[in-house]
Amino acid sequence: MGNDTLNIAKALWWEQDTLYLLDQTRLPAEEKVLEIRNQRDLVTAIQALSIRGAPALGIAGAYGVLITAAEWKHSSGPPEWTDLRKALKPLLHARPTAVNLQWAIERCLNRSIDSTPSTESAAYQILFQEALAIHKEDQRRCDAIGEYGAALLGTNNRVITHCNTGALATGGIGTALGVIYSAVRQGKQVRVYADETRPLLQGARLTAWELQRAQIPVTVLTDGMAAALMQRQSIDCVIVGADRIATNGDTANKIGTYQLAVSAHFHHVPFYVAAPTSTIDLQLASGDQIPIEMRAPEEILALNDIFIAPKGVDAYSPAFDVTPSTLITGIITDEGIAYPPYDLKQYLKGRLEQ
Amino acid sequence: MGNDTLNIAKALWWEQDTLYLLDQTRLPAEEKVLEIRNQRDLVTAIQALSIRGAPALGIAGAYGVLITAAEWKHSSGPPEWTDLRKALKPLLHARPTAVNLQWAIERCLNRSIDSTPSTESAAYQILFQEALAIHKEDQRRCDAIGEYGAALLGTNNRVITHCNTGALATGGIGTALGVIYSAVRQGKQVRVYADETRPLLQGARLTAWELQRAQIPVTVLTDGMAAALMQRQSIDCVIVGADRIATNGDTANKIGTYQLAVSAHFHHVPFYVAAPTSTIDLQLASGDQIPIEMRAPEEILALNDIFIAPKGVDAYSPAFDVTPSTLITGIITDEGIAYPPYDLKQYLKGRLEQ
Repeated sequence: MGNDTLNIAKALWWEQDTLYLLDQTRLPAEEKVLEIRNQRDLVTAIQALSIRGAPALGIAGAYGVLITAAEWKHSSGPPEWTDLRKALKPLLHARPTAVNLQWAIERCLNRSIDSTPSTESAAYQILFQEALAIHKEDQRRCDAIGEYGAALLGTNNRVITHCNTGALATGGIGTALGVIYSAVRQGKQVRVYADETRPLLQGARLTAWELQRAQIPVTVLTDGMAAALMQRQSIDCVIVGADRIATNGDTANKIGTYQLAVSAHFHHVPFYVAAPTSTIDLQLASGDQIPIEMRAPEEILALNDIFIAPKGVDAYSPAFDVTPSTLITGIITDEGIAYPPYDLKQYLKGRLEQ
Repeated sequence: MGNDTLNIAKALWWEQDTLYLLDQTRLPAEEKVLEIRNQRDLVTAIQALSIRGAPALGIAGAYGVLITAAEWKHSSGPPEWTDLRKALKPLLHARPTAVNLQWAIERCLNRSIDSTPSTESAAYQILFQEALAIHKEDQRRCDAIGEYGAALLGTNNRVITHCNTGALATGGIGTALGVIYSAVRQGKQVRVYADETRPLLQGARLTAWELQRAQIPVTVLTDGMAAALMQRQSIDCVIVGADRIATNGDTANKIGTYQLAVSAHFHHVPFYVAAPTSTIDLQLASGDQIPIEMRAPEEILALNDIFIAPKGVDAYSPAFDVTPSTLITGIITDEGIAYPPYDLKQYLKGRLEQ
């Protein structure tokens, strides 16, 4: 009874020297695909949030190297690495907080440089293979998270999620939503309750859109409803993504996640975090050390450019909050599921030794 | 150091045969006052939510009787009660769930009928006195709630609230916000954190507006932020209003209240309900018996008439939730503060005997 033909969205793909991006700023009203053939258009798309989500941005960065080095494809001269690095600067700094973007660009460059290709054409081929590898690795990581997580679900499930952690945020099927796609592929029934996720409404706009497209039942909640839902209906679990995980399991994720974790704890509903192991920051002992980015108050006070609050009023606008590991039932990674008490440094070491 | 000159808003007032309503649908963008001189305009204003809040609707209903019976003012004929009752039908049913509207209309009529006035002019005078009495009683109830509640606050306070329970919802200074106005009048410092209160944003639109006007520091939160705020800052208490309170203390209030109560409980933050004793439903033993009104999904899926979610997607849209009394530190009423274990039938009996 598996469902192999799920219509899962794609945030981006590469075809014939062109990067295709689904323009997420137009969703859910319109499905518009951007054809990106020069770096300036890519930087614009990244800054406009047409593409978002740490893994997806990394992949876009890798393909962005190919776009920037397009002329190398048919050049037999020696690789001018200094010129390419200089040309890549706008892309490197397109979004300062997007570490995956920088990481992917550096990885492609270093891999190609280390291979000491004698021509730009040969260098381009290595850049190309590395970009594909980064994309494929992310797909495999999503699939692995999905498989491990799906095993936690029963035959019928009601799952609450927050923000967007699906195909639109990654190069594959997503992290928290990847678990749901995998379960549905295995023939399990899942109804998803998606927090709308104020202020930017990624849940209402993106999660609802991609689940509706895949014909997975989805119900939108406002961010204050989850507890009332848990009180009145039997919810099987909460699954959310992560922006950064400390080695003790404390997890930074989109604002609203912590309140959802508190509600899950109060109602004895299992609360899972789904994220690639690359999200675990081995330098961080605990969540106290995670700095919280504060966003512009206007993101809260205005919606669709219309002010919904009196002008000049104050707003609290943290981008993230930190859920202490004591509220987390399990952390679903591409290497397996970690359980409390969390020592993720030891956990990763153990998995890599297997 | 008291502040007697707080610039507190007024939802409605009566002057020279005219009912003035602050048009709440225009807030916070515009301060427009509606001058109501016929019942049709009043029904339209009520249906458009230009005026809202159970106590304010009751007072509007009472003044609506005067508007409907305007011709009686100078008539020496015998009161035609049957005609007046018939003429009042549209007003009685302007909002089916607004029990205060019906209650206030019936109270004015019954009071006047019971006095057996011989002329319509005399009947009108009794209706007029009763409408004023209903308005004054509400003001006194708000003041009493405010005084009792303010005694719970210290010199400096950070208070979280939900929805709008202020001057805009009542004929006086409000219930939960009434406590804050009273404390500030006494010279206490209060910073209010106002949940924006999706879907209809009464917190961002109305609470922020009336507090800003009264120069009380206010910070708008999205409905998923309260727990993160409690985790990072010391919050002194949460104060919310109530739509209906069962005799065991279980409280129905705007959706999102229960999740806020769960977060307060988890962080050991006192959680108070402020409401007139008329909100206590002596017929209800517990909150299980409170029916939950479901609203149209479009209230969640669209904002400012623009869809923020894909069309056709499902949404969960309860108007209220029920907070069990075990999460409520105290219920602040116009008769005093009730504490757990709640037996509000006994409590009211005790207060009335004093």
